Amino acid sequence: MDTLSHVPPGFRFHPTDEELVDYYLRKKVASRRIDLDIIKDIDLYKIEPWDLQVKCKIGTEEQNEWYFFSHKDKKYPTGTRTNRATTAGFWKATGRDKPIYSKNTLIGMRKTLVFYRGRAPNGQKSDWIMHEYRLEANDRLHA
Amino acid sequence: MDTLSHVPPGFRFHPTDEELVDYYLRKKVASRRIDLDIIKDIDLYKIEPWDLQVKCKIGTEEQNEWYFFSHKDKKYPTGTRTNRATTAGFWKATGRDKPIYSKNTLIGMRKTLVFYRGRAPNGQKSDWIMHEYRLEANDRLHA
Repeated sequence: MDTLSHVPPGFRFHPTDEELVDYYLRKKVASRRIDLDIIKDIDLYKIEPWDLQVKCKIGTEEQNEWYFFSHKDKKYPTGTRTNRATTAGFWKATGRDKPIYSKNTLIGMRKTLVFYRGRAPNGQKSDWIMHEYRLEANDRLHA
Repeated sequence: MDTLSHVPPGFRFHPTDEELVDYYLRKKVASRRIDLDIIKDIDLYKIEPWDLQVKCKIGTEEQNEWYFFSHKDKKYPTGTRTNRATTAGFWKATGRDKPIYSKNTLIGMRKTLVFYRGRAPNGQKSDWIMHEYRLEANDRLHA
């Protein structure tokens, strides 16, 4: 793949949570240039998990993890609830969000989601797991 | 580390045997330029295994594998036997050499060695393991 042509042989994309948030996500949000176009933009709610594999392929190797950027889709234009449904099913959060630190500073959070086929509140749980990373704003109001 | 400054964040050096032989070793033997000076030259028989960690460090991360180039040292100037002794001990081959293929072509062999403290034929086996890669010449004489 073209984007990998300037990474030397022997290197694999195995980013840490800190690198994903502090480098890739932070740059993306600030619309700053990312050295290597390795993380694709997709609309996660217009794509089924099993179709991600083709769109988010890195190089020629077998992968069982894929990375992508996607915008959050609001359920209602004025609301804060997130719509995580695709045509075939929906993504549902599971467990607690995990804090991501750089040294001792909280820089982001990681949410884990599971894909269910069908429609909430029913649906059939699948083996597809997704981690959603978000930046944690460090601007605080003290009073 | 300087050599890693042009590898994008999130990439780790996890080469396959095929990449080590077909790219890194083949270029080294042919004195051709290697994109990234990630594999250091050392004299393996002048260095103890526990001192490799500092010399062959990649980046800032914890490593438990190190990569290096080293010349074979002949036991006697006219002989073919290899001297694999250091000051504190010696490297001893174990098991069978493993063939390395690129597609269906044999391109090299991988020898596994274990470090023993002391002097052969005695010496105390350690947990240090080394893989020695060599090119397999594909020039054959047919008659």
